[in-house]
Amino acid sequence: MADAVIPESHRDLLEAPVVAALSTLGADGLIQTTAVWVVLDGDVIKASILDTRQKYRNMARHPHATVLLLDPANPFRTLEVRGDVTFSDDPGVALMERSVTKYGSSMADFPPPYDHRVVMTLTPRRVVAYG
Amino acid sequence: MADAVIPESHRDLLEAPVVAALSTLGADGLIQTTAVWVVLDGDVIKASILDTRQKYRNMARHPHATVLLLDPANPFRTLEVRGDVTFSDDPGVALMERSVTKYGSSMADFPPPYDHRVVMTLTPRRVVAYG
Repeated sequence: MADAVIPESHRDLLEAPVVAALSTLGADGLIQTTAVWVVLDGDVIKASILDTRQKYRNMARHPHATVLLLDPANPFRTLEVRGDVTFSDDPGVALMERSVTKYGSSMADFPPPYDHRVVMTLTPRRVVAYG
Repeated sequence: MADAVIPESHRDLLEAPVVAALSTLGADGLIQTTAVWVVLDGDVIKASILDTRQKYRNMARHPHATVLLLDPANPFRTLEVRGDVTFSDDPGVALMERSVTKYGSSMADFPPPYDHRVVMTLTPRRVVAYG
């Protein structure tokens, strides 16, 4: 499916430290949208999140999410990825560290414990790129 | 309801020309998130949209939406507004013009016809401000 692949033309938005808007569906029918750090891993998007948060509970119930990235240099250039969500452990918090480093922060700012850190993986089902 | 009011501390994000992420729920259970221009009108958020677009159809079916704004100068400072959506006409496309002007553009870039322009009004039900 051509439209389920993140196009080469917009992969830079996921490779640069652009903060993403992550949207999930709440039990009340309202959407929660939060700012998240994301990592491009091949053809999927990953994020280190806490399993104590509403976004986790929302995705555990309704395993779909959407990520929007706006090019900071050109707000008409955007990448939207809608997809299916799965969760996995993060051995050695390797994905978390990759994310923290990508966004120019330090693990010293995120001390242990990491018991509640999980990796969410967003597998694209529909991708819309503008600009 | 205190948490349904946009706090003074974060109204600047809606008064400045910050592009918002607008999320709506599709019939397929996936969320659509797009970049939109928004206008703060008292205690509600308005946007000029086209009634031919998916976001309109999504909100006509499921009259809720969520807007997230990230402070361009500080990505840890965010404003999320979840709420209920209503639609109305835009006589003289006054709201559209207000939006276009706010974001530093010109109506010359958006020539008529305006037959499909409507105003969406997002009435906050839950507001989350960080930073």
